[in-house]
Amino acid sequence: MHREETGTKSFENNPYRTHTAGELRAGDVGERVRLAGWVNRRRDHGGLIFIDLRDRWGITQVAFRPEEAELFGQAEELRPEWSVSIEGEVARRPEGNENPELPTGEVEISATALSVLNRSETPPFEIDRERPVDEILRLKYRYLDLRRKRMQENIIFRDRVVKHMRSYLAERDFVEVETPLLTASSPEGARDYLVPARLYPGQFYALPQSPQQFKQLLMVAGFERYFQIARALRDEDQRGDRQPEHTQLDVEMSYTTQEEVLVLIEGLFTEIVEGYTEKKILHKPFPRMTFAEAMSRFGTDKPDLRFGLEIRDVSEAVRGSGFKVFAGAIERGGSVRGFAVSGLGDLSRREIDELTGVASAGGARGLAHLKVGADALIGPIAKFFSPEEGDALKVALGAQEGDYMFFVADADAVVFESLNRLRLHLRDRLGLADEGVLALAWVTDFPLFEWNEDEGRIEPMHHMFTMPREEDLPLLDSDPLKVIGQLYDLVANGTELASGSIRIHRPDIQQKVFSTIGMSEEEAQERFGAMLTAFRYGAPPHGGIAPGVDRLIMLLKDEPNIREVMAFPKTQAARDEMMDAPGPVAEEQLKELHIALRRPPEGKPGSNPASRPSEGDNS
Amino acid sequence: MHREETGTKSFENNPYRTHTAGELRAGDVGERVRLAGWVNRRRDHGGLIFIDLRDRWGITQVAFRPEEAELFGQAEELRPEWSVSIEGEVARRPEGNENPELPTGEVEISATALSVLNRSETPPFEIDRERPVDEILRLKYRYLDLRRKRMQENIIFRDRVVKHMRSYLAERDFVEVETPLLTASSPEGARDYLVPARLYPGQFYALPQSPQQFKQLLMVAGFERYFQIARALRDEDQRGDRQPEHTQLDVEMSYTTQEEVLVLIEGLFTEIVEGYTEKKILHKPFPRMTFAEAMSRFGTDKPDLRFGLEIRDVSEAVRGSGFKVFAGAIERGGSVRGFAVSGLGDLSRREIDELTGVASAGGARGLAHLKVGADALIGPIAKFFSPEEGDALKVALGAQEGDYMFFVADADAVVFESLNRLRLHLRDRLGLADEGVLALAWVTDFPLFEWNEDEGRIEPMHHMFTMPREEDLPLLDSDPLKVIGQLYDLVANGTELASGSIRIHRPDIQQKVFSTIGMSEEEAQERFGAMLTAFRYGAPPHGGIAPGVDRLIMLLKDEPNIREVMAFPKTQAARDEMMDAPGPVAEEQLKELHIALRRPPEGKPGSNPASRPSEGDNS
Repeated sequence: MHREETGTKSFENNPYRTHTAGELRAGDVGERVRLAGWVNRRRDHGGLIFIDLRDRWGITQVAFRPEEAELFGQAEELRPEWSVSIEGEVARRPEGNENPELPTGEVEISATALSVLNRSETPPFEIDRERPVDEILRLKYRYLDLRRKRMQENIIFRDRVVKHMRSYLAERDFVEVETPLLTASSPEGARDYLVPARLYPGQFYALPQSPQQFKQLLMVAGFERYFQIARALRDEDQRGDRQPEHTQLDVEMSYTTQEEVLVLIEGLFTEIVEGYTEKKILHKPFPRMTFAEAMSRFGTDKPDLRFGLEIRDVSEAVRGSGFKVFAGAIERGGSVRGFAVSGLGDLSRREIDELTGVASAGGARGLAHLKVGADALIGPIAKFFSPEEGDALKVALGAQEGDYMFFVADADAVVFESLNRLRLHLRDRLGLADEGVLALAWVTDFPLFEWNEDEGRIEPMHHMFTMPREEDLPLLDSDPLKVIGQLYDLVANGTELASGSIRIHRPDIQQKVFSTIGMSEEEAQERFGAMLTAFRYGAPPHGGIAPGVDRLIMLLKDEPNIREVMAFPKTQAARDEMMDAPGPVAEEQLKELHIALRRPPEGKPGSNPASRPSEGDNS
Repeated sequence: MHREETGTKSFENNPYRTHTAGELRAGDVGERVRLAGWVNRRRDHGGLIFIDLRDRWGITQVAFRPEEAELFGQAEELRPEWSVSIEGEVARRPEGNENPELPTGEVEISATALSVLNRSETPPFEIDRERPVDEILRLKYRYLDLRRKRMQENIIFRDRVVKHMRSYLAERDFVEVETPLLTASSPEGARDYLVPARLYPGQFYALPQSPQQFKQLLMVAGFERYFQIARALRDEDQRGDRQPEHTQLDVEMSYTTQEEVLVLIEGLFTEIVEGYTEKKILHKPFPRMTFAEAMSRFGTDKPDLRFGLEIRDVSEAVRGSGFKVFAGAIERGGSVRGFAVSGLGDLSRREIDELTGVASAGGARGLAHLKVGADALIGPIAKFFSPEEGDALKVALGAQEGDYMFFVADADAVVFESLNRLRLHLRDRLGLADEGVLALAWVTDFPLFEWNEDEGRIEPMHHMFTMPREEDLPLLDSDPLKVIGQLYDLVANGTELASGSIRIHRPDIQQKVFSTIGMSEEEAQERFGAMLTAFRYGAPPHGGIAPGVDRLIMLLKDEPNIREVMAFPKTQAARDEMMDAPGPVAEEQLKELHIALRRPPEGKPGSNPASRPSEGDNS
């Protein structure tokens, strides 16, 4: 199912090679050839010198014989990673010496000439073996790290997948349009990277957090079907698996509907998974569930559907129980929810504490557990429940003898987040999820707004250009938090792969949304003037989506973080260790840009320009 | 020869349309259809209302009849650029009313329903006609400007050509690799755009002027065949046809030669011109000439080969003449060169002055002219030349009776630049160049270095990573200005389309080049440390090229400037008029970035943050 490289390469008149190191076979025996590449390994064996010559396309064994004394002498100097060109005759390997693991393993080159193109110092880590290497070292010598098979495969795989995205969309008449990098501040709400404008003292460009406004303006411009493999830049705090720049497949359509966008992207992702990986898509067509359903069944809007442990609301069953923690949570407007788990055996006190710790990280003040015994429930809180209540719990969670039942009782948001974490923890602990399976699914019908507790105000859940459901338009005035937006996410195995929406195209609705989130007409005009003006000139209904490329490739290649699928990532502290960026600049440059460095208050941490934030977790 | 759009579009379940506005034909008569798009024009004629409905794929006429009173009333409100969806039956147009200029011109839709999706105010300029519009207004309302046929075609054409570049290279096993936007200062020598680093007080990222270092590092990393449709950003003064960002097809290969790069790119450009335009390539294979030949024949390294007026050196013929201006220039180490022109008739004094002005703009202190009369040369300087000298001049320039001969006598550089300008001026004046022809050619063998008169030092002509010709390596020490680099430019019709070189891959040669241009080992390490270190680990021989995408599209579409082939260009004063960027930012943001605005000296021009440089020439 893997699509093979089909490129044609002609090496006519090439002085370095006649063939790649991946293509010689038994049928080529007797041919005189030239190969170029790197010394992958050298072995001295039986009086001969063997080198594995590596290029991008494969490895071919080359043999140097002592009869050719001068050539043999040259070969004796060869070291790993030297760049060489070798001439010789294709020979069948002596019987028993074939290497079935190499496509070229039946043959070797009997060398007649060797040209050393460049020597190599000993690399700071091994190129030809997969061993753990400090990541900062790998990033500093990224040009060597990228020589390794795994990294070569990741970067080439990424190219193949992105190429498929392009051809899939081109077949459907999408036009790729380049949008500017130097632009105005964008509406995503993360921190912008700023670029001082030399010609405009005191003014700045912003780098795009996404081409959101431009793609909507391209719909106003009548392109109807737009896409772009677009770079998005966000100056976020580098917690977790983030990078200052990431790549997204930016898609937008006019005269379209949510259904049309979903069908389009579902087709694309199916072709990518089935055409380029061995992974199995769990359900086709992709299951769809509303945000509300995803939350209540999995405690998250990014559910991992590869395994069960579905959450159930048991509030009704325990409302009257003697267990004050449960009853109290319900009284305060919260709920009691939980799920049943098989295969845990008998948990020790320490193990229970560990699971409680996982739930607590989600905000829960405790984790209640009950084990289903042969006759009765077992555990410190068993005594609070009547046999009928106990049966009701077992039925609600579908628990069998020997299972554990876990419960969190709190405000809904806390219950969801805590049980979600517990669910994922148990997935990993019990090996419930099949790595070879992709559980792709759509989550739809997100609320348009959410309540920001800290700032005491309504905020857009996605962004402020999302269209409410037609039937919810009246709620914008009366009960905005109840408005459902035409929003959709594509998720897989607990990761969000894409997020999109049908956009507002009518200026009156856009204005109403702005005022709902407390943005004055002036501020809206100031920040989004171009779009608001554009909407006055026959803007068509439109919508789109933006799958993240890095995260998709990471998921398809089973990599633990997106740095493994980017050629030149920054560290988690946003540094380019190889190019040594960022760095200081000349005072003259700052003058030209009409800016000056700010003197930090003395003694404040970070006041030393040479100081670097810690590199953090390299996982 | 134009490649047609071949995309497939399914509108199953689409509530807005069943077909595009470009596809209905006589064979569809009787079918009930739905179309969506914009009101291109409305005509009230014979008691009916006709609208031309426009979408990205075409225009279809829709007829509203007064019999359907309510629908007709709705149609009466329609105005240009309203966004609508229309239902109706495909009908054959009444005989004599067909429009042969429209692919849909045999049919019209007899409307049965109309849905207004969005109204439009009157646009600030006409969408459906090509008339001159102030460019700043066009850029401010770019989303409307892009609705115009010409702009739609340009942007879609650009997509098609770029798509062909990608598939051409993918077929040859090139891998597209994304390189970072936030990086360190690059070696191109133009001004960098800088990005303050929030996490590193006093430090800055630079936006890439090209991925030059990254693409070379990808060769060290063993990718062998790399390309990228890459954004390059340069903070240059906006004279001429420049943009802060432009797009280049960045290509690099390992174990390659100049010949291989030229053949690759020649194949690509031939396919693009012949596959996507009606233009004729003047010579295939593309002519090749050295830099020295290009200068001496055309006075420029970007010759327009569509016409003659080739320059000849007549120094020997006039060395002994009595004309002091000629003799003096030769004595001072310069030369006397010129060319002959037919078809100018008899030039007036004013016309001669005008041509002299053109030559002067290239540095010449004067322009000498001689007209070839029936018996003798005519003109103010004719008296200085003996009949033999006159004949020698005619022979040298191939001049016939009635021709003018023009000469410039000065230092070579001045002679070349002045005659180049005169040559191009006469091209335009006499209409010598066929717009339908592309004279593609290679210029090779550029000097590696040039002498910077102002700073009194040797500079790299292209960039400092260019490999000298093998045979010139010894000259690096003895006579560096004589060293020829493995440099090549692709030119067409007087424009440079691509520039490339074989790179240095050996650290010792790189170091020597650095020291030749007076760069210390420390400075080299500071600026290009990653590359110098990388070269120590078996860097392969490599080289590449970087055709400019914007300029190519402009040339192929006969557009006067690159803004016409970019979706969202800046003005010549580097402003985004639509998004109103750059703009001021909050003090809080500056604080986070550890920078402050510099207070400009009072009264200095540009000290007012709101002031804008003039927009300059909008041509």
